[in-house]
Amino acid sequence: MPEALEKSTDYERLIKVFGVSKLTEEIINELPEVHKLFKIGYFFAHRDFDKIVKRWKEGETFAILTGRGPSGGLHLGHLLIFDFVLWMQKTFKVPVFIPLSDDEKYVFKKVKNLRDSEFYAYDNALDIIALGYDERWTNFFISTKMLDVYQLAVTLSRHVTLNEVKAVFGFTDSDNPGKYFYAVVQSAHILYPTWRKGFVSLVPIAIDQDPYIRLSRDIAERVKLPKPAALHSKYLPGLTGEPMSASKPETAIFLTDKPKEIKKKIWQALTGGQPTIEEQREKGGNPEKCVVFQWLETFLLEPKEAQELKERCKRGEQLCGDCKKMLYKGLVKKLKDHHKRKIEAIDKVERYFMHPVDLGVMDKIREREEELLKEFEKVKL
Amino acid sequence: MPEALEKSTDYERLIKVFGVSKLTEEIINELPEVHKLFKIGYFFAHRDFDKIVKRWKEGETFAILTGRGPSGGLHLGHLLIFDFVLWMQKTFKVPVFIPLSDDEKYVFKKVKNLRDSEFYAYDNALDIIALGYDERWTNFFISTKMLDVYQLAVTLSRHVTLNEVKAVFGFTDSDNPGKYFYAVVQSAHILYPTWRKGFVSLVPIAIDQDPYIRLSRDIAERVKLPKPAALHSKYLPGLTGEPMSASKPETAIFLTDKPKEIKKKIWQALTGGQPTIEEQREKGGNPEKCVVFQWLETFLLEPKEAQELKERCKRGEQLCGDCKKMLYKGLVKKLKDHHKRKIEAIDKVERYFMHPVDLGVMDKIREREEELLKEFEKVKL
Repeated sequence: MPEALEKSTDYERLIKVFGVSKLTEEIINELPEVHKLFKIGYFFAHRDFDKIVKRWKEGETFAILTGRGPSGGLHLGHLLIFDFVLWMQKTFKVPVFIPLSDDEKYVFKKVKNLRDSEFYAYDNALDIIALGYDERWTNFFISTKMLDVYQLAVTLSRHVTLNEVKAVFGFTDSDNPGKYFYAVVQSAHILYPTWRKGFVSLVPIAIDQDPYIRLSRDIAERVKLPKPAALHSKYLPGLTGEPMSASKPETAIFLTDKPKEIKKKIWQALTGGQPTIEEQREKGGNPEKCVVFQWLETFLLEPKEAQELKERCKRGEQLCGDCKKMLYKGLVKKLKDHHKRKIEAIDKVERYFMHPVDLGVMDKIREREEELLKEFEKVKL
Repeated sequence: MPEALEKSTDYERLIKVFGVSKLTEEIINELPEVHKLFKIGYFFAHRDFDKIVKRWKEGETFAILTGRGPSGGLHLGHLLIFDFVLWMQKTFKVPVFIPLSDDEKYVFKKVKNLRDSEFYAYDNALDIIALGYDERWTNFFISTKMLDVYQLAVTLSRHVTLNEVKAVFGFTDSDNPGKYFYAVVQSAHILYPTWRKGFVSLVPIAIDQDPYIRLSRDIAERVKLPKPAALHSKYLPGLTGEPMSASKPETAIFLTDKPKEIKKKIWQALTGGQPTIEEQREKGGNPEKCVVFQWLETFLLEPKEAQELKERCKRGEQLCGDCKKMLYKGLVKKLKDHHKRKIEAIDKVERYFMHPVDLGVMDKIREREEELLKEFEKVKL
């Protein structure tokens, strides 16, 4: 991908460059319900999402496939996607498969060894389960702990050339063979529900990941499996104005952040406010350019509430400090509940995994979570 | 490898080209017993075999690792190696690990799908078990059915570059990523006993396979595991004079050959005899150039018996027809016993595998073996 396009927010152009389809009002209106992330345009492009919905209306179900590379803790941006997938699970009554690609993180040197990645895999899974996933329809697996993954990847590998992998991922001959093979493993994750259960896969994914979807679709065609569909999202704005990123902690709120850190990050966040209170009162703020507003809209408010806040801001009736306080209080409450549900999730985590779970790791996570929860319980809101 | 060297029998030169060590009398005399294959020079080179033997004498055990790519039935040449390994198991009291690389055969397009390879994997394993392997010290696994294989391969993959794999295997960018990754999987097989159990691996292998050993040794060094040792063999002469090869059925006797086919192959075999009986009586034969003699020496006779036969041949006292009859009768007897033991092996095959065995496949093999055995029982010797 040309570097200029990386994290570009010229979405009309990205649609053309990647050759994906625009997610139109027409398609959205076909849905039994319209999720907030469709309303605010967070999902804006797709591949065959319309066909998935059409066939679903005719009684054919599908599976959602949404992976996670476990090299660290989740942040709120990650949770947002999994919250959306949960809504899909409930609305469409579909199974969800969540591969945790420890192999990916290891071959790309994001973790020191597979064991470290295993810790994050369980930790991430618990965060996701805590959102309220139904154990009967949710299937987690750690990539190196599922025999089927390697078997399917071997099967698919014969239908790809190294040239193709190089073209999609931009690897060179100095890269390790594990990276190349992971390209096929990723396709194995995506096609797993189709191969094993006959469900076509729908993959919600950030637009810059589309080349991997295209490769999986090409492979699917060659092995005569139905091609996976995709739903493309924009990048979430980080607190500093840059896209949210795990490698820049100041851009995001992590689920391991304590209230103190959350407060600090929010108080330093980029707003659309005027330099002084007087000017704000007089000219009004600029909510379109305000990360604090966008976060309130994305994470906490109903569309109607957000609309009202936006207008108050534009009229100069709302001050940035108050918005920041609202965001801080809302997130602390949200995270306090989250940690409680995460601790509860530990007891039933085994039901969510397709292979035996290492319960020793769970004990470590429980200990850390209980300490974190105490920090949140201290805060008076 | 330069093409001129492929299947070259200039062994002194091969030792230099591959940079391996010559297997000297001195090392052989250190062994508690001397196997026939050492006496007839079948094993002629090594890497660190002397160190393995030295440490074994000091009480440190090792493991033998000898794989098989399951894309067809075994022939007598294959059995010879496994017979030697069995002797090693008994003499040194060491565990043997036998990976059956269905993934290799699939990515190199030697089988249509992994399931076909699975059939041969079990079939080959039964042939090997039938030689008399001790279930307590013998560990078979099918490569795509052992989770550890993929986990270890991922771990090792980060310590190799694509350049290295290209150099060793001669792959291009039109090859599939499965082939590249298999290079690492092969190292995972070789290093498995070391990684999991702490045994240094000894790998008996044909000399042209040495580059893969070297790659595994390099990787072992990088991940701080003891380097595997190797014992290099010559190529066995096939019945037609060319090296024995699974792709040229006339060069070898397969374990699925019926007595009729065996007879035909042996009667067409290359001998060192004179054009007529009269000339043979007068000038004597040339046992050094006679495949039939070499097969008798390798598969059936004790060294002393072979020496006597050789002299009788040189003196013109032995006719080619009689040698062929001797080889035919000897092999039919050997194979009849083999099929009996193979059928017995089916009942206890599960004890030899490190993962669950598909017993449905065993039933198919049993049926075929029972029919084959009948053919052998019909022959009057």
